[in-house]
Amino acid sequence: MDLIVRGGTIVTMDGERRVIEDGAVAVTGGRITAVGTRAEVEAKYTAREIIDARGKAIVPGLINGHTHVPMTLFRGLADDLDLNEWLTKYIFPAEAKNVTEEFVRVGTRLGLAEMIRGGTTTYADMYYFEDAIADETAKAGVRGVLGETVIDFPVADNKTHEEAMAYTQKFVKKWQGHALITPAIAPHAPYTVSEEHLKAVRAFSDQTKAPILIHVAETRKEVEDSVKSKNARPVEYLSRINFLNDRVIAAHVVFADEGEIATLKRAGVGVVHNPQSNMKLASGVAPVPQMLVADLDLGLGTDGAASNNDLSMWEEMDTAAKLHKVTSGDPKVVSAQQAFEMATLRGARALHMEREIGSIAVGKRADLVIVDLDDLNQTPLYNIYSHLVYATKADDVRTVIIEGRIIMRDRRLLTLDENDIKTRARAFRERIIKSLAPSGTQTGKI
Amino acid sequence: MDLIVRGGTIVTMDGERRVIEDGAVAVTGGRITAVGTRAEVEAKYTAREIIDARGKAIVPGLINGHTHVPMTLFRGLADDLDLNEWLTKYIFPAEAKNVTEEFVRVGTRLGLAEMIRGGTTTYADMYYFEDAIADETAKAGVRGVLGETVIDFPVADNKTHEEAMAYTQKFVKKWQGHALITPAIAPHAPYTVSEEHLKAVRAFSDQTKAPILIHVAETRKEVEDSVKSKNARPVEYLSRINFLNDRVIAAHVVFADEGEIATLKRAGVGVVHNPQSNMKLASGVAPVPQMLVADLDLGLGTDGAASNNDLSMWEEMDTAAKLHKVTSGDPKVVSAQQAFEMATLRGARALHMEREIGSIAVGKRADLVIVDLDDLNQTPLYNIYSHLVYATKADDVRTVIIEGRIIMRDRRLLTLDENDIKTRARAFRERIIKSLAPSGTQTGKI
Repeated sequence: MDLIVRGGTIVTMDGERRVIEDGAVAVTGGRITAVGTRAEVEAKYTAREIIDARGKAIVPGLINGHTHVPMTLFRGLADDLDLNEWLTKYIFPAEAKNVTEEFVRVGTRLGLAEMIRGGTTTYADMYYFEDAIADETAKAGVRGVLGETVIDFPVADNKTHEEAMAYTQKFVKKWQGHALITPAIAPHAPYTVSEEHLKAVRAFSDQTKAPILIHVAETRKEVEDSVKSKNARPVEYLSRINFLNDRVIAAHVVFADEGEIATLKRAGVGVVHNPQSNMKLASGVAPVPQMLVADLDLGLGTDGAASNNDLSMWEEMDTAAKLHKVTSGDPKVVSAQQAFEMATLRGARALHMEREIGSIAVGKRADLVIVDLDDLNQTPLYNIYSHLVYATKADDVRTVIIEGRIIMRDRRLLTLDENDIKTRARAFRERIIKSLAPSGTQTGKI
Repeated sequence: MDLIVRGGTIVTMDGERRVIEDGAVAVTGGRITAVGTRAEVEAKYTAREIIDARGKAIVPGLINGHTHVPMTLFRGLADDLDLNEWLTKYIFPAEAKNVTEEFVRVGTRLGLAEMIRGGTTTYADMYYFEDAIADETAKAGVRGVLGETVIDFPVADNKTHEEAMAYTQKFVKKWQGHALITPAIAPHAPYTVSEEHLKAVRAFSDQTKAPILIHVAETRKEVEDSVKSKNARPVEYLSRINFLNDRVIAAHVVFADEGEIATLKRAGVGVVHNPQSNMKLASGVAPVPQMLVADLDLGLGTDGAASNNDLSMWEEMDTAAKLHKVTSGDPKVVSAQQAFEMATLRGARALHMEREIGSIAVGKRADLVIVDLDDLNQTPLYNIYSHLVYATKADDVRTVIIEGRIIMRDRRLLTLDENDIKTRARAFRERIIKSLAPSGTQTGKI
């Protein structure tokens, strides 16, 4: 074996939701080869490298189902605004003036570093220059479903639909088959990409098997506009044009009625819930309890740091569990275990990767996270799922293993240079502030 | 001077909301004696002890306006339940079988350690054996408004109203005038304390000037029951019996209409919003935007760790800002600056202590928190309030000063023994689990 992690409490998230005390996980060739008690595993296997996880939890790597990782450079650029004002006065101008391949690389490294430190091992991204994002992600040793954006107006990397499709063709061809990177195509939303272009995207996906990432039904305005212009709500519209299938990953889906939830389930669409972003932008509250009853392939995402403003999946789990309790009036919905599932196994289903990731099971990719269980904010411990969802924080993550490789050990990043990242991020901050003056940014007194 | 903190960005929360770059704060005799730029302060003063805060923020100590600190020992004991089931099947039995003075001391130390590490310098508490809580709080060097519980059934420390009043009389007399401890009386709620006893509490407060801590209008059921039995909603009822004044601190107030908000404002009542607890127990969403428009003395609290499940005021600020955006549909309500105010200056007003704490201003108590500004999750920095509310976490707090005394330095607790606390907390966990068997606790597989 290449690696054995031993001695911790394994929260497997396997079919029986086994929690194994004093467990061990053996890894070889980037995959999990044995899971059991320490005694069972050690009786059969030895390894080149042993990680002691006594007193800690060993959990499946967390899955951030929706983000825009380079936007980490815009964290806190503008807050407490209408989505429209936020986008048109701050984010779009900031993007128009600043997004280059170098921006994307620095922002990706910054976001990756934060995600690794929080135990995220797989993330789904939608942005520009996605080939550079893939390159940085692969170098950092992180798993990604990375979607190049297709949108019906000129953007930083591609000026036309044809350019974007050509870029994506090349991008998908280059990365397909990579152990860590799943290249994808990301039509921005049903209201920013024409029916013709959505159909072209779907045809491209049919041909290449590349997943499709798309924003769907994020705001009430989107739904109202869709009804006006297309005589159908967004999910209905996408269903009508035969866009939906089991390669589609729909972010947000704040507005979906029972019929639409059934449509998404029938088509095998993965859905990603982004509670903190939906709250901060006042978009609305997705019908998550109903989606869970329908057993939808429902994951969790942070969205970009510009609308969150962090990439912590621990906070996203905690918020998901609490938000739906108060909005439904039922404290039993979205239990801690369900929230943890959304960040692991169900999140893997949302990305159509449940055969590869999402649980600690023999044959799956070795994406493992070792988490402290006895920080002050975690004392005492009664129930492991409650503990992970309601009490654990990103900084309780100790060690991160992706594809069998140790990416962070005892909170030290092994594939990224934290100081270099911060220095470069600060330099971009200066440029971004200058680029937005004198129209003014919300930069306050600092 | 005893102490100068210098070189950081001072977020004063003073009348002009000054943010001072490369600032300095001078402290003597536990109070702030100078605030200004480093150059200004250093030209006038030297100090026995200098703390370098370059690259960091210096903010007023955070104020946790409502908790039950010993309940930290019940963190995660039972979750995802109806308030009634949670209370009657888990919390009340666990309390009946476990709450002793020793339990209270250990739980208080555990909660204090977590609060200090998160930058909380003042907290308001309602529990039993409050004299022991005061003793532990004073020893740890933390500021507290500590209310001994008065309730119309026998509890751990006092079996009758008369016993509770006699205990409180002695308790208040003992601690009044202490630099850190404000002893208070805490009638549990309008539905658990009779009108006669509430009037006795108010008379006691009138005589001693002790603050009154009380839960008010936390759930819809409480409001409905109040209307049925008293022909008035909770706030109306308390107003009718002349209970409300500017020594009252009302926790929750989830249900208050425009008239009741005006009543609270007119009476000078402090109100403490507990968003995470209200979400987790599905209690409801307090009308915080309306309360802010009315300029209520509105603070923030974590409630007990059993219903949160942590004591981080950073998460409480973040959640408050986001929750009211999504429930009101307006992303401009509860701005980052307003959320930060609720945890500092407005929180001080809620505890009727705004002349003593809540901002960094000459003459106020020297409760200062030094916060990192360049953790990965905080990079880059555009706006200081957004940064503090949406990006900063409890573990970004570096150094905590209360009443001019350094309580935590570079994340090392100086007044509490973290390992001893954890060991004792784990021992109580064993006892608590045994005490609830065989009726069973929600302790899952671990």
